[in-house]
Amino acid sequence: MEAAVACLAEHGWAGSTVAVVAERAGVSRGAAQHHFPTREDLFTGAVEYVAEERSAALRALPVQGRAEVVAALVDLYTGPLFRAALHLWVAASNEPQLRPRVTELEARVGRETHRIAVELLGADESRPGARETVQGLLDMARGLGLANLLTDDTARRARVVAQWATLVEEGLG
Amino acid sequence: MEAAVACLAEHGWAGSTVAVVAERAGVSRGAAQHHFPTREDLFTGAVEYVAEERSAALRALPVQGRAEVVAALVDLYTGPLFRAALHLWVAASNEPQLRPRVTELEARVGRETHRIAVELLGADESRPGARETVQGLLDMARGLGLANLLTDDTARRARVVAQWATLVEEGLG
Repeated sequence: MEAAVACLAEHGWAGSTVAVVAERAGVSRGAAQHHFPTREDLFTGAVEYVAEERSAALRALPVQGRAEVVAALVDLYTGPLFRAALHLWVAASNEPQLRPRVTELEARVGRETHRIAVELLGADESRPGARETVQGLLDMARGLGLANLLTDDTARRARVVAQWATLVEEGLG
Repeated sequence: MEAAVACLAEHGWAGSTVAVVAERAGVSRGAAQHHFPTREDLFTGAVEYVAEERSAALRALPVQGRAEVVAALVDLYTGPLFRAALHLWVAASNEPQLRPRVTELEARVGRETHRIAVELLGADESRPGARETVQGLLDMARGLGLANLLTDDTARRARVVAQWATLVEEGLG
């Protein structure tokens, strides 16, 4: 699963096949194809698995202040997992056989990430605007991931995250 | 230029060639290739041209309240231009001959969009946090564009934008 995500992040959808991942992971092509009959199976499965692992790790962090939680949420979108997911999203926008699977995957992972963000931020979603504050924060995190795709955006991102953590505090009360 | 952007938005980088765009625009392949010797020239040129057109249109809007400005800025990232730019970014992350051109293009367009956003929002960047508030807003707009790639996210986006417009107001004072 990690090899599939790394492959997708580095080579994109066009350069990612079950055979390439099998070689990278040191398993036989036959074994890989037995578990994942198509490359759609392998790569959507891998992105979902790694996203779940990242979510579980995030949830297991000791309880922290909101600024640290905001930074940890943003970090979800700046590594190989986000790159891999981005390649899947963009490929799905042009490939009809991939699209429904990625749409469903995005919805499931998105709901789970929102749930974890609400929990870690201690957001009261019955309060007007709280739900949209969390959603907008995750949208910003995705945009920051995109801004980090071609250049190292670490320094600028840290300043943006610090300021928006104070605005999230306002939005959540 | 519009045909090149539409082609990239619909078919992605792999499906976009000078010949396909020439046919779509109703010009001869020879004429298109005279102006744009490589497809890198054509597609980076087209995205920059259309981005400038959109920026000029935004700047020409009558002065409005900040909530309207926030909504107009977010709209920049939800149409064919954003889709086209996204395909370029993702292709550039894997293709060494495209990468430096797209990195430069992204920096130029990004600076220009930031400048227009500051102007339209009436942001005082000497005030602590104002610059990062505008940057984070544009990052959020990019993330909202990504969320709109596979599904129609219009209704959710309107609620997020309404809430974040009030947070931007806080951030700009």
